[in-house]
Amino acid sequence: MSAEQTKHAPDAAKDASAASQMWGGRFASGPAAIMEKINASIGFDKRLADQDIAGSKAHAAMLARQGIISQADADAIRDGLDRVKEEIDSGRFEFKVELEDIHMNVEARLAELIGEPAKRLHTARSRNDQVATDFKLWVRDAIDRADAGLKALQTALIDLAEQHADTLMPGFTHLQAAQPVTFGHHLLAYVEMFGRDRGRLTDARARLNECPLGSAALAGTPYPIDRFMTAEALGFNRPTANSLDAVSDRDFALEYLAAASICAVHLSRFAEEIVLWCSVQFRFIRLSDAFTTGSSIMPQKKNPDAAELVRAKAGRVIGMLNSLLIAMKGLPLAYSKDMQEDKEPVFEADDTLGLCIAAMEGMVRDMEPNREAMREATARGFLNATDLADWLVRELGIPFREAHHITGRAVKMAEEKRVGLTDLSLAELQSIEPRISEAVYPALSIESSLNSRSSYGGPAPDRVREAVKVARERFL
Amino acid sequence: MSAEQTKHAPDAAKDASAASQMWGGRFASGPAAIMEKINASIGFDKRLADQDIAGSKAHAAMLARQGIISQADADAIRDGLDRVKEEIDSGRFEFKVELEDIHMNVEARLAELIGEPAKRLHTARSRNDQVATDFKLWVRDAIDRADAGLKALQTALIDLAEQHADTLMPGFTHLQAAQPVTFGHHLLAYVEMFGRDRGRLTDARARLNECPLGSAALAGTPYPIDRFMTAEALGFNRPTANSLDAVSDRDFALEYLAAASICAVHLSRFAEEIVLWCSVQFRFIRLSDAFTTGSSIMPQKKNPDAAELVRAKAGRVIGMLNSLLIAMKGLPLAYSKDMQEDKEPVFEADDTLGLCIAAMEGMVRDMEPNREAMREATARGFLNATDLADWLVRELGIPFREAHHITGRAVKMAEEKRVGLTDLSLAELQSIEPRISEAVYPALSIESSLNSRSSYGGPAPDRVREAVKVARERFL
Amino acid sequence: MSAEQTKHAPDAAKDASAASQMWGGRFASGPAAIMEKINASIGFDKRLADQDIAGSKAHAAMLARQGIISQADADAIRDGLDRVKEEIDSGRFEFKVELEDIHMNVEARLAELIGEPAKRLHTARSRNDQVATDFKLWVRDAIDRADAGLKALQTALIDLAEQHADTLMPGFTHLQAAQPVTFGHHLLAYVEMFGRDRGRLTDARARLNECPLGSAALAGTPYPIDRFMTAEALGFNRPTANSLDAVSDRDFALEYLAAASICAVHLSRFAEEIVLWCSVQFRFIRLSDAFTTGSSIMPQKKNPDAAELVRAKAGRVIGMLNSLLIAMKGLPLAYSKDMQEDKEPVFEADDTLGLCIAAMEGMVRDMEPNREAMREATARGFLNATDLADWLVRELGIPFREAHHITGRAVKMAEEKRVGLTDLSLAELQSIEPRISEAVYPALSIESSLNSRSSYGGPAPDRVREAVKVARERFL
Amino acid sequence: MSAEQTKHAPDAAKDASAASQMWGGRFASGPAAIMEKINASIGFDKRLADQDIAGSKAHAAMLARQGIISQADADAIRDGLDRVKEEIDSGRFEFKVELEDIHMNVEARLAELIGEPAKRLHTARSRNDQVATDFKLWVRDAIDRADAGLKALQTALIDLAEQHADTLMPGFTHLQAAQPVTFGHHLLAYVEMFGRDRGRLTDARARLNECPLGSAALAGTPYPIDRFMTAEALGFNRPTANSLDAVSDRDFALEYLAAASICAVHLSRFAEEIVLWCSVQFRFIRLSDAFTTGSSIMPQKKNPDAAELVRAKAGRVIGMLNSLLIAMKGLPLAYSKDMQEDKEPVFEADDTLGLCIAAMEGMVRDMEPNREAMREATARGFLNATDLADWLVRELGIPFREAHHITGRAVKMAEEKRVGLTDLSLAELQSIEPRISEAVYPALSIESSLNSRSSYGGPAPDRVREAVKVARERFL
Repeated sequence: MSAEQTKHAPDAAKDASAASQMWGGRFASGPAAIMEKINASIGFDKRLADQDIAGSKAHAAMLARQGIISQADADAIRDGLDRVKEEIDSGRFEFKVELEDIHMNVEARLAELIGEPAKRLHTARSRNDQVATDFKLWVRDAIDRADAGLKALQTALIDLAEQHADTLMPGFTHLQAAQPVTFGHHLLAYVEMFGRDRGRLTDARARLNECPLGSAALAGTPYPIDRFMTAEALGFNRPTANSLDAVSDRDFALEYLAAASICAVHLSRFAEEIVLWCSVQFRFIRLSDAFTTGSSIMPQKKNPDAAELVRAKAGRVIGMLNSLLIAMKGLPLAYSKDMQEDKEPVFEADDTLGLCIAAMEGMVRDMEPNREAMREATARGFLNATDLADWLVRELGIPFREAHHITGRAVKMAEEKRVGLTDLSLAELQSIEPRISEAVYPALSIESSLNSRSSYGGPAPDRVREAVKVARERFL
Repeated sequence: MSAEQTKHAPDAAKDASAASQMWGGRFASGPAAIMEKINASIGFDKRLADQDIAGSKAHAAMLARQGIISQADADAIRDGLDRVKEEIDSGRFEFKVELEDIHMNVEARLAELIGEPAKRLHTARSRNDQVATDFKLWVRDAIDRADAGLKALQTALIDLAEQHADTLMPGFTHLQAAQPVTFGHHLLAYVEMFGRDRGRLTDARARLNECPLGSAALAGTPYPIDRFMTAEALGFNRPTANSLDAVSDRDFALEYLAAASICAVHLSRFAEEIVLWCSVQFRFIRLSDAFTTGSSIMPQKKNPDAAELVRAKAGRVIGMLNSLLIAMKGLPLAYSKDMQEDKEPVFEADDTLGLCIAAMEGMVRDMEPNREAMREATARGFLNATDLADWLVRELGIPFREAHHITGRAVKMAEEKRVGLTDLSLAELQSIEPRISEAVYPALSIESSLNSRSSYGGPAPDRVREAVKVARERFL
Repeated sequence: MSAEQTKHAPDAAKDASAASQMWGGRFASGPAAIMEKINASIGFDKRLADQDIAGSKAHAAMLARQGIISQADADAIRDGLDRVKEEIDSGRFEFKVELEDIHMNVEARLAELIGEPAKRLHTARSRNDQVATDFKLWVRDAIDRADAGLKALQTALIDLAEQHADTLMPGFTHLQAAQPVTFGHHLLAYVEMFGRDRGRLTDARARLNECPLGSAALAGTPYPIDRFMTAEALGFNRPTANSLDAVSDRDFALEYLAAASICAVHLSRFAEEIVLWCSVQFRFIRLSDAFTTGSSIMPQKKNPDAAELVRAKAGRVIGMLNSLLIAMKGLPLAYSKDMQEDKEPVFEADDTLGLCIAAMEGMVRDMEPNREAMREATARGFLNATDLADWLVRELGIPFREAHHITGRAVKMAEEKRVGLTDLSLAELQSIEPRISEAVYPALSIESSLNSRSSYGGPAPDRVREAVKVARERFL
Repeated sequence: MSAEQTKHAPDAAKDASAASQMWGGRFASGPAAIMEKINASIGFDKRLADQDIAGSKAHAAMLARQGIISQADADAIRDGLDRVKEEIDSGRFEFKVELEDIHMNVEARLAELIGEPAKRLHTARSRNDQVATDFKLWVRDAIDRADAGLKALQTALIDLAEQHADTLMPGFTHLQAAQPVTFGHHLLAYVEMFGRDRGRLTDARARLNECPLGSAALAGTPYPIDRFMTAEALGFNRPTANSLDAVSDRDFALEYLAAASICAVHLSRFAEEIVLWCSVQFRFIRLSDAFTTGSSIMPQKKNPDAAELVRAKAGRVIGMLNSLLIAMKGLPLAYSKDMQEDKEPVFEADDTLGLCIAAMEGMVRDMEPNREAMREATARGFLNATDLADWLVRELGIPFREAHHITGRAVKMAEEKRVGLTDLSLAELQSIEPRISEAVYPALSIESSLNSRSSYGGPAPDRVREAVKVARERFL
């Protein structure tokens, strides 16, 4: 997954061919290699290194204060863990597959560094509560990352919306031109969506913020531990209330993945619009070379690849949500090894979502709206038809349903003549409804239609400017 | 889906064969029939009838207060809608497929009843904001139903947990006997899960509680409407902030489905345990005939069908979440007809989840725990092995990692002799670790092991009784 | 789901409110009602009536020939079953929820009609093999329906492709205009897709065609049955080879759902294109009122609702596949009640897919391609840029990669001048590559570009006409 | 994913923190870095290296034979590609992210090695048909790998089934003891499932085996290429029939993922059974240390981790299927960049499935069935109840439905006395049905019950031995 240049390291290709040898027919490598490959998680759970070390430091400090281990042991553990972290941060740490996971890798290295005290670290805890704690901390960070990314994306959207508070644009339903809006108003719709996404993340964060540490394997521990102390040290609001639940629960990962999936759907919708807007048929925006690519065969192409990838990656994120929901389905309590399948979907969703949000922010900052093309587009599709109906209701007191029918006949007449509604003569309009007067024409200009749509939440430029201000206050 | 006896109405069977005729080769029925069948939603959206009428009443009252329609018209509309509701409630209403959806069915009937004023009702709104409002109201009710159901299930669990606060039971990890817990403690783990489910529902409810009404088709309206008035009348906290978002947003349905899916996974886990517990191999509980069935061929069978169905139906709920996530993926703004696919998944999830929660509550109230079988089960699987290790740490100051190895050797010795740990003689234990004394035996009794596990959140009976009390306060 | 007018029967609405009462708080109706509601399948499995009766007739005939029951009993059973079928076909049959499923409903009615012989029918079989047999027969029919529907859709596509074998149209990649194709060529791409869909269905049909009947509950039977006889009578190729597998297997439903999902994705792609083509921006086709609808508020709208619904319903079908994959995940052998969750997803997928295929066939037959709009669209987007590059390679011997760069510069020059490539003067072209001659211009006309693309599988009109002929032979 | 020891390379951890910096708030790295990260596929598509080189060699050879490039150029290209392959195989190749994908990496290196002829290689093709060809070749290999793995797993199952053709074991339905089977018979059920999986893979392989090469970007090419020649050289049956379809089609990946998902569900079912069988409650099998692990805290544990992981990984594979179905949903023709999301799900599924199959084969070869425990288990649960009913039908001519009721009463009597059916005295049995004679007892022994179940596909040992023989012929 590294985006950096990878020298002399066709590892994936080699892996694939090794895998092929392994399970094509009789696997040569034997049970040990297969078990190591399926069982070891260090290949991915090393991403929990920081969280694991933080958790162990909090645990050791608590054990010492409760008199379960000596203060000297706790000090040695703390200093040793700091050294381990430094080795990892600097890239000098040697991860070993035979030690299976990040927890054993860290503890084994700690033992090399500080000797016997390291063996006392695992007192009154188990890998089951340890991994639940580490992973919760990680997901909490992922939530914070996603929130920050979405806030930055909202910022870009609000900035652009402000510039285009009165940039006329056709609003669509069913991809049919419907009524006039402004480009700014359209962008603010996404600000709302991403605001709800942030709300979901915030709620998920608050709900997960209970500390499993001290639940041990599944049934707590006879040691006189202080779970409130470790919970506080790690920034949790409180310890979890039930030891079986604490080690069996992956709701926090599922809820994160569900929020990420809904967010990814929002991003896919915006991406679809970007793809449409970049087409020759729409030309509503132009993206620079920064977010488009050429073709290996068609020299004229400027493809909106980044947007297409964001659109597609919604599939990936939803796939990850499914992976974990399915893995958890029907599992008896308490911990089962199935739960080790929790991390890769979350890591993958975090990487994917982060990249998509950043790409989308980049595209918003990069895009150059084509005011002229948008305005031209408002001339097609009878965007002012509703305004005629509304005028009939308002000025002539015709019930809406009848006004709708009258307007329908006017639209049909204009369509047959291949003109717009305002191009129909008064006589023509009166042939449909005799009470229509000259006064109708000003009401049918697109600008007047737009400006009149000033109900709360509407697209009238003044409303949009107001909405920009409110959005800044609510979200930034 | 009706659970009632259905006389002379093999409609599904007939439907199927009609469908077969229709699209097997050239469809005889022609475009009109196909379009009606794919387009009309009245077959399912009649479930929105109450919400639609409430929304229309609020809208009409607002139109009158704002002077957009007369008070007389508003009164006629209100009374007419009350009559329509009465007809629907009493089963006298005639739903018409040719009127497509619930909105047109209600409005058309209203017109029959009150004439012209009915045609003024649709002023300053559109089906797009109308359906968003109706469906939000419906989902809000569904959330309230689910919350009430889960609360009732928690009540049953807490009641049973209290009775079995000290009923000894083996705790499992990897379905291997691990450490002793109590049946009450085990049940409380589910109280936590369902508590989080309720939290997710509550958060979703708060987030959805913004009123789309008045956003009209997509771009608001030129009429001087008061969106705050209708929002308040319908119990919303405020109107939605952006008209395009208001008609394009189905987050509320997705978030409900996501919460329902996680809840369904919890239910599936509990169901799996019930299936296990009812087996001859476990015999931990007995269900009455109320929740089991016999076999058409094996006269001895007493199958836990209800639990199996609850387990399976997690698939259905997750399938519904996927249906809507996929339908929404990549949709440009604003409303597209694709969104009509939002209702059936939600209705189906609501029916399924409601039934599963009720069945689970029923089974909890019905189940008869077999104390004897659970206690017997604690004798197998060396549940006290961790206690030996802990004793070595606590009493002899041996580091945990070493104590773990010593205990492993003791377990191996006992396994070879096919006895329990406490059946090993002191000499035998001392052959492994000479410092072990007689004092170890009391620490190895299952009861002592259980009672010692009194850390916060642990299974010691006193802790469980305390947890029962706290759970009542938090959840009931 | 009925598309017919439903008088006085707001059952769904009532159901919803009944459900609400039931599980909102303590369910009033009690365990019996809940169990009946979750356990009974007659509400949906009555769709298996024909298959169930056919299976029973084959079973009874075999029992008689093997001397397990008397010929008189078998005759009575056969005649009785014919009467039951007649009652069902005529709508006079009274389905009873208390009899749980279609199997018991049919058998109970048979007993009413013929007395004691009916009690001998269930000899040497179980509901487990019975339902597997019935459902396989049903899925086999569903496959045949889907195949016939797809063939009809291919027919419509091939007919239209033939008419438009030389209707010029821009081909797109990344929704950017790329190279010229014809509308006929474009349609034939879908003929290929639906052809593969039919291939998957055909393979699934062949694989499922083994008869489970006689596997009994899970372990066969001591009666001297002849499974080959029943298999043949029901049109199966052979009996299943393992009795445990026979009652545990739902691969046939999963494989059908997987094939349906891929097909639904194809339909969603075509639907997306129809939505695009109907937009004011594209105008490539026009759909009649048969497959479009108006707006309740915007009198000018002509929305491609049917296409949007087909696009969305891919979500539904994929959701159904997920439902069953998840329900089956982790189930121990042999039959578990979880498997009762197999039918609704398949029924739903069959209804949905059938409707989508029919709607799509309808739209293909209904659509009026706009030759002029498509041709105009080929003028934008430098569709002939690749032709310039190819000319440089072919005529001047320039390596392709260099030719690609030269062409890129020509496109840039034309873009800046807002003209097409053929509008550049020879001097201008030579300023980029001096060896370019007048001879380049004919090669750059869109028609010549199109006609030159005559490699196998290409869009040159002659190729397309040939492909139409071949497609008729392969698929119709 | 590497299972090897990874020195000094905490790249995932670093990646995570880099990502965090990047999109937490304003991304420091700027658009270029984001675009490179989202757009470049070389990180994963280097797994296509072999296929890409094979495709290019076939293309160059064809170009030369058709006179489109010189033979000298073709020879240079062929030799150069051989050198590139050698560099990759030996790990000396330097993959460059700035060259985006495997295709450009290979071509760029070729240009370094052989100069100008390399620039002629891309004549008459595009990355669109190139990647479709490469990926089809890769999926074809993946299918062959999966087929070989499944065949090896079937071999292990059949071998073990043969050894245990008469090892008595309770057959279960609803996880309730039902009727006697043999362990061999049970294993053969999985041989059937994996046989169908292989059938699906074989069908998918045949269907995908059409060559896209020469379809170019989307619209074929004006060069006089011979697509049949390249198709044959690469082992395809024929070239694809429609150029637009050829570059838009990812059915082959979807069909592979669907087959993999169904197979993963089978594996999850078997894994669930292994977990159950390893529990203290069942003890049907014992796994060696090779496929189990201990606990960090509970010294007695021997957890069936490999089986649990296989069970969970069904979620992953199904998630991958969803990812791609969703990515493809609603995509207009022809190629869109969204399709680049096709490879990672397939690679991931191939890795996961391969590992799960190998682990399962390993466990089958490793497992030690516990005959005694299985036999003991047949004594519980009235496995012979159906035999009593069948005896009543056979010997006394009682209709089955009545016999079923009589047996039910006998079971109830035995249950109350806590004995087995054969422990009831003749008088007791006759108190229920007077015509029962001493002759009933032999029919009720578990062995006699088992041996009598000799209908085709049944568990009688002779049948199982026969089935073993047939399975060897069909599958190995």
